[in-house]
Amino acid sequence: MKTKAFAAQSATSPLAPIMIERAQPGAKDVAIEILYCGVCHSDLHAARGEWPGMRYPMVPGHEIVGRVTAIGDAVSKFKVGDTVGVGCMVGSCRHCFSCDDGLEQYCEGPHGFLQTYNGWLDGSGETTYGGYSGAVTVDEHFALKISHDAADLAATAPLLCAGITTWSPLRHWQAGPGKKVGIVGIGGLGHMGVKLAHALGAHVVAFTTSASKIQAAHDLGADEVVVSRNPEDMKAHARSFDFILNTVAAPHDLDAFTALLKRDGAMTLVGVPSSPHPSPAVANLIFGRRSIGGSLIGGIAETQEMLDFCAARGITADVEMIAMGDIETAFARMLKSDVKYRFVIDMATL
Amino acid sequence: MKTKAFAAQSATSPLAPIMIERAQPGAKDVAIEILYCGVCHSDLHAARGEWPGMRYPMVPGHEIVGRVTAIGDAVSKFKVGDTVGVGCMVGSCRHCFSCDDGLEQYCEGPHGFLQTYNGWLDGSGETTYGGYSGAVTVDEHFALKISHDAADLAATAPLLCAGITTWSPLRHWQAGPGKKVGIVGIGGLGHMGVKLAHALGAHVVAFTTSASKIQAAHDLGADEVVVSRNPEDMKAHARSFDFILNTVAAPHDLDAFTALLKRDGAMTLVGVPSSPHPSPAVANLIFGRRSIGGSLIGGIAETQEMLDFCAARGITADVEMIAMGDIETAFARMLKSDVKYRFVIDMATL
Repeated sequence: MKTKAFAAQSATSPLAPIMIERAQPGAKDVAIEILYCGVCHSDLHAARGEWPGMRYPMVPGHEIVGRVTAIGDAVSKFKVGDTVGVGCMVGSCRHCFSCDDGLEQYCEGPHGFLQTYNGWLDGSGETTYGGYSGAVTVDEHFALKISHDAADLAATAPLLCAGITTWSPLRHWQAGPGKKVGIVGIGGLGHMGVKLAHALGAHVVAFTTSASKIQAAHDLGADEVVVSRNPEDMKAHARSFDFILNTVAAPHDLDAFTALLKRDGAMTLVGVPSSPHPSPAVANLIFGRRSIGGSLIGGIAETQEMLDFCAARGITADVEMIAMGDIETAFARMLKSDVKYRFVIDMATL
Repeated sequence: MKTKAFAAQSATSPLAPIMIERAQPGAKDVAIEILYCGVCHSDLHAARGEWPGMRYPMVPGHEIVGRVTAIGDAVSKFKVGDTVGVGCMVGSCRHCFSCDDGLEQYCEGPHGFLQTYNGWLDGSGETTYGGYSGAVTVDEHFALKISHDAADLAATAPLLCAGITTWSPLRHWQAGPGKKVGIVGIGGLGHMGVKLAHALGAHVVAFTTSASKIQAAHDLGADEVVVSRNPEDMKAHARSFDFILNTVAAPHDLDAFTALLKRDGAMTLVGVPSSPHPSPAVANLIFGRRSIGGSLIGGIAETQEMLDFCAARGITADVEMIAMGDIETAFARMLKSDVKYRFVIDMATL
């Protein structure tokens, strides 16, 4: 099955149309017509070859919402016509320590989980192609049910990466009533972190470097907003947080945040900096039994949990719709943080 | 009550005899004749003024074992003649979040916990003097019952710092049967970490930079010993540890150890490096939801728990006895790691 897509032919080529082959659905597969695809910052890093191991042509996109057009004989979760989502994963070993726990993102199989794009297809040497395309075929295990209202589908797409990447650590570190939770950075991930932590019932404090984002952060659901460049404002929150979700990938001073954790508090990083953060002060960890950890997207079961939670409460991302042909303009604006908070491609424009 | 002690008169003075004043026991206090005092690396850092806020004369020593010589009217835990221990703390606010949880080491009162030496005595401007002395008077809350055999008392002294500093994180991170636990560094702290993790039933892997310590680590109770300078030996343990207790304060590559943690595994640091560790790789944390944390000594209740556990099993530190007058020689040998594994001062030699 041939389908149109947008691909980078090299790290220096702008994305442009291409025809790609999609598999006929196997027994456990669903074929999906893609309706919307969110534009994650990873798509830009990958397309531009800023990470090792990138292969071209590269079709980015792992925040996919679409409709089932065909199913394999053994598919049980979906029927033709269902609205479905696909996130960052389209495969994993399915039988390791982490897969058994429903945490496929930490798959300990020989290749880890299979990425939705730029992933090596076992045995074939072929590369997976992502959601900047008209269709995709995936194992039903890696497809998610979407029960949001039809009008919300475009804004639901970013939940598949930005949503689950913040949901998983918020749940793991038990954000909820009675907990004071910080969200560092109010971008694609952070804006979802604020919305989800608020919906989970936590007292949410958003941290931003920019005073111009204060009102916007309150609008997203933050109970308090702190401009992290103001030491006095930071100090007022010393030793008070149960959990801090840090969505900022740019290298920055982590100590300013570990000092705000309560005894036994944890800060979790979800972005890999391109150059190291300044080495964190060990004393901040020892005096308070605090920790710095990391978290990677989320498992399929918890992604479904998050989607159902969001559908029940009408939670979506704040998005700006673009046409497929405007992707390079969107990339350029993302580099200037000129988006509130996620671009989503309307695949009708492909 | 005057008593003899050994003190540094400045950061550059060798320790020498001095007479100090000890308080008559107040209503809740016990007066203690000191029998033995362990020599912690902190004593050396403090005596030499290598940390900020050091005040002189400085009487080091916070691994104290002694005998109760007098008690105040309201003392209920002890009677004259009891064998007791005093560790790193002789006071705290007693009513904060952490004190209420029995974790006085994380006291959030205005001055934190009161250190056994170099601590500011509230209201008086006086400094506390430690265990390199003939006697000490402390609030009974900060004295511990020692039920080890009389012959083991000298080797029990290091449990008051080295023992509890490793016990507290081992218990907090649930070292025990079915858990694979790493102990990094086989010195004063690490040798207790190996003994205690082994006694708690964990599968214990000791990490050392020196092949010459392999047999000694096995003798302490390690099930396996890895020379951490051998990358292939390290790789064989990738993703396999539930918990790693890192006792090495010297700056070193933390990534070599975070890579050995299972998903959700934690590495806890108990030493503050004098200059920062190389900044740890965030990717190691994110890919595996791992964390790096810290831990500080332990609370009074858990110190008693550890002492009782050790007494029941006959666990003590491996010590070399010295006379008080040999303290400078002992300090010099500690700087060369020439001690297995803790010096203990026999206070009969004062």
